[in-house]
Amino acid sequence: MGLNGIDGLIIDLDGTIYLGAKAIDGARETLEHIRSVGKKVVFLSNRGNYSRKMCQDKLRVLGIPAAEEEIVLTSTVTAAYLLEHDPDSQAWLLGDPGLREEFVSHGVKLAATPEEADWLVITLHETLTYAELNSAFRAARHGAKIIVTNEDKTFPGDGGENIDVGGLIAAIVSTTGASVSVVVGKPSAYMSDAALRSLRLPPERCLVIGDSLHSDIALGKRAGIRTALVLSGSTSLEQAEDAEERPDFIWESIADIRTML
Amino acid sequence: MGLNGIDGLIIDLDGTIYLGAKAIDGARETLEHIRSVGKKVVFLSNRGNYSRKMCQDKLRVLGIPAAEEEIVLTSTVTAAYLLEHDPDSQAWLLGDPGLREEFVSHGVKLAATPEEADWLVITLHETLTYAELNSAFRAARHGAKIIVTNEDKTFPGDGGENIDVGGLIAAIVSTTGASVSVVVGKPSAYMSDAALRSLRLPPERCLVIGDSLHSDIALGKRAGIRTALVLSGSTSLEQAEDAEERPDFIWESIADIRTML
Repeated sequence: MGLNGIDGLIIDLDGTIYLGAKAIDGARETLEHIRSVGKKVVFLSNRGNYSRKMCQDKLRVLGIPAAEEEIVLTSTVTAAYLLEHDPDSQAWLLGDPGLREEFVSHGVKLAATPEEADWLVITLHETLTYAELNSAFRAARHGAKIIVTNEDKTFPGDGGENIDVGGLIAAIVSTTGASVSVVVGKPSAYMSDAALRSLRLPPERCLVIGDSLHSDIALGKRAGIRTALVLSGSTSLEQAEDAEERPDFIWESIADIRTML
Repeated sequence: MGLNGIDGLIIDLDGTIYLGAKAIDGARETLEHIRSVGKKVVFLSNRGNYSRKMCQDKLRVLGIPAAEEEIVLTSTVTAAYLLEHDPDSQAWLLGDPGLREEFVSHGVKLAATPEEADWLVITLHETLTYAELNSAFRAARHGAKIIVTNEDKTFPGDGGENIDVGGLIAAIVSTTGASVSVVVGKPSAYMSDAALRSLRLPPERCLVIGDSLHSDIALGKRAGIRTALVLSGSTSLEQAEDAEERPDFIWESIADIRTML
């Protein structure tokens, strides 16, 4: 099975294009090749504490130019969700500054105080303070509905695994009795729909490339998009072969696509 | 029923002696009277982010002198628990500086890195940062057992309710799969035993005075100590009268004891 009829690539970032601050070997040349044969690209990441602008800058430093429209993050899709489903609402944000940048660029209304918020948005917050956690707690306690960019419990960092947004969600939910209304991140249809809209292609003409069975491959299966799992991130070959829903392709890294294009 | 045979008073702090930075009306004069008639006193609080020294200073400012031995906090009892039950162990602390002060004064060994910790101690941390939360996460992830000063979800503050230690516990437990091994705070026997040891009196010669049915009154009932609920804190008369385990006395405030001594 080759890549016949595939015109758009939906490409994960962490573990697929880069690991931490370093590009995956061959990622830059592969992206150049993909573009040279005329395939469309969208980068799709569960990162909610970055803005597209920050992500674009990071890719540029790695030698991988991308238009802002070719980047879809959970911060992007969360902002778009609120604009579409509850346009008059006001949001309170718990997350790193990238989340705020994305919300401001979308024009989502931000509440002046936690008590006035209709929605509490939670994403990873690596510069969290108690005061910020307490403000988010107050928003939820006063009835703000909770929307989260993703529910991951840990993420890999320089010194080992780190506590992720799941910990912040648990802190708020356990102390307020509130529950999470919307989870935006992969493998949700919010994310696959946003990627397909960016590519302007139907699912059968696309391929998802990512390192996570739970988010990338599951997203493709749900949305009817073919899938390629790369072993350059969080998944081992053994895990890939044991998976209930097997990807269409298993590659050492994204560089393997070059032999098929 | 009077206070015949009562020689020692076990007195809660928040909501009983003070509310925030302010003494409860009449608390100072009442304590003077209690001392003048020769009753013994111990202050017993679920606060784990204070040291006895800090608490002594706060009481002094309010005109209520107390010896350090007359103050028993959950930070005190948690440090004593580790020294008694696991004397060679090393602890990692998640909490305000008062917790560390109390551990250092007890001589509990502190781990140099989260990964080396045998125990993770969690209390309220009003100066929390993400880095500190992440270090605690790593201690639990690497197998440190979890001991918590208390499990309260919220506490009253100047601008309304605030998120308490329960939120921090949930963040760690939900992301590591670990569970809490020991809860030190009232109504546990750890706290009543520590109070009785400080007073050197048997339970039947003591009285617990506090504003919480769940912690103060329940502690007395479990330990066979008579109980007085004060309405100057978190409990209303209606809640007191509906309680499954009724206190022996219900007072507007601690000042009511003066008519009985």
